Amino acid sequence: MLSSPGGNPHHPSTVAELGEFGLIRELTSRLDTTPSVHLGPGDDAAVVAAPDRRVVATTDILLEGRHFRRDWSTAYDVGRKAAAQNLADVAAMGAVPTALLLGLVVPAELPVNWPTELMDGIRDEARVAAAAVVGGDVTRGDVITVAITALGDLRDKAAVTRSGARAGDVVAVTGWLGWSAAGHAVLSRGFRSPRAFVEAHRRPEPPYHAGPAAAGLGATAMTDVSDGLIADLGHIAVASRVRIDVRSRQLDVPLQMSDIGQAVGVDPLQWVLTGGEDHAIVATFPRDRKLPARWRVIGEVLPPTGTPQVTVDGAPWDRAGGWDHFGPDQD
Amino acid sequence: MLSSPGGNPHHPSTVAELGEFGLIRELTSRLDTTPSVHLGPGDDAAVVAAPDRRVVATTDILLEGRHFRRDWSTAYDVGRKAAAQNLADVAAMGAVPTALLLGLVVPAELPVNWPTELMDGIRDEARVAAAAVVGGDVTRGDVITVAITALGDLRDKAAVTRSGARAGDVVAVTGWLGWSAAGHAVLSRGFRSPRAFVEAHRRPEPPYHAGPAAAGLGATAMTDVSDGLIADLGHIAVASRVRIDVRSRQLDVPLQMSDIGQAVGVDPLQWVLTGGEDHAIVATFPRDRKLPARWRVIGEVLPPTGTPQVTVDGAPWDRAGGWDHFGPDQD
Repeated sequence: MLSSPGGNPHHPSTVAELGEFGLIRELTSRLDTTPSVHLGPGDDAAVVAAPDRRVVATTDILLEGRHFRRDWSTAYDVGRKAAAQNLADVAAMGAVPTALLLGLVVPAELPVNWPTELMDGIRDEARVAAAAVVGGDVTRGDVITVAITALGDLRDKAAVTRSGARAGDVVAVTGWLGWSAAGHAVLSRGFRSPRAFVEAHRRPEPPYHAGPAAAGLGATAMTDVSDGLIADLGHIAVASRVRIDVRSRQLDVPLQMSDIGQAVGVDPLQWVLTGGEDHAIVATFPRDRKLPARWRVIGEVLPPTGTPQVTVDGAPWDRAGGWDHFGPDQD
Repeated sequence: MLSSPGGNPHHPSTVAELGEFGLIRELTSRLDTTPSVHLGPGDDAAVVAAPDRRVVATTDILLEGRHFRRDWSTAYDVGRKAAAQNLADVAAMGAVPTALLLGLVVPAELPVNWPTELMDGIRDEARVAAAAVVGGDVTRGDVITVAITALGDLRDKAAVTRSGARAGDVVAVTGWLGWSAAGHAVLSRGFRSPRAFVEAHRRPEPPYHAGPAAAGLGATAMTDVSDGLIADLGHIAVASRVRIDVRSRQLDVPLQMSDIGQAVGVDPLQWVLTGGEDHAIVATFPRDRKLPARWRVIGEVLPPTGTPQVTVDGAPWDRAGGWDHFGPDQD
């Protein structure tokens, strides 16, 4: 098995030299399996366990230049991130991720180690969620394109949609908020530290286990934070026909994030409230529910009062106001 | 609901004018549902019935210029074809297709009716197989890219892989062979008729029902013909460690296909043996099995004898020989 094609003169160094079937062999040789995988790559289709008799499925398509940059992120990190955002969508339905499928477009002149390291990253992120890569398709094209589909199992619980929040519910979050955005601010100003935030931008750590756990705790609505807390709570508010108020003092703004904010002239609350890509999980729960320690109550669900449907401390969050004189900071 | 955006001055005419959310609304408004769809588009993920407790899953990624041409095929036909090739993969496992997911890259300046007509085509092909589109993702990029994932249900039967063929089995096929290749030959020479073959190239008609039916009839190995009969039988031969011999006189070469061959100087058997994209289904069965009328026995499974693993009338099929002086004819 080939682990470092670029370093070995006997191995081809570009996708074109290796060829389509060679690349597929190379990619599938890196995969592992789980008990959920009845049939992995290599046939017309894969077969994956769906013990619940329902399967949760979601897909995302990512382009170089638009969703990732090869000079900011390694192929491995792109793989981790691409897998993470799909696995987080599955978890945010209350499901346990089981499998990933990968559609990949690679330029002919791309060094082979780029797709193989991407595959390593996808495989390793799948492992974190106890899932496995079960199939895929590779073709040549000018722009690196990564299309991932994730599947999951609901384990006999109802799917938690965005539409079940009720006035009186509390809003709670688990995972990281604003870390990726703070890391992006650091990187976009040419810095490489503080490392924890740069790492958070390169490789999110969604709390996969928290999704199914929240379903078990009776979450009434749930989503992962991929567009930013206010935007994603907005999706819940619209789908549930409610208003949601976030209390800013209940949000966690780490001291080091405040320091970065000070250094670059951005209110760190802006990152926490509008930064996506950390894939925290936010959910609404009946008020009487005792939540585990890692959930933080950050607001409440109110009857609808027109727009805005999400407020911060009772007022609209004015993204353009105050600190944000660098303008939109997210891709 | 918008049915013909280009013709209405009040509606935006390009993807950029409509915007991402507008396009997603436009695409999802065209979809329908089936009893298998517990939750369709609009949440973090879809939820699809998997009554068998296993789900069959496959994915393909198609690029403009490489897999389709806008001047040869309408958006609607590209959608039909992209859906068909994934649905056929599910059927070729012996499963009943249930759902499709779509990842779509569209250029900003693309007229909106291109992606909406693509969606219509995907939806209509899904309907033929009694499946539905349940989710997707849309992003902007320079090259139209269509990534489709298909799911299916095995209905309590074992999946039919490529690896179960045994010496003594018969090889049988159902669906169309060589029609798409003959249509491609017609189109590539600037003609638009005979229409039946041109249509077959633009819009394949895989026999979806035949896959699960073959599983019920005890098929030992199965695949859909997407790379050409010899190539796809080669996949079965390799996976099953057998040799497969095809008898050319048992293949159906329609008179009109012979006429086209005559006109363009190609042995029509070449299309039947090496043309992909019709997505016929080919399977191996125990010799004593009575097959329904639409299955045609075309060869037999023999003990392995080294390469070639697939022969025609006992001899290697020499693709370059005889009639094929136009060289490789397929994309």
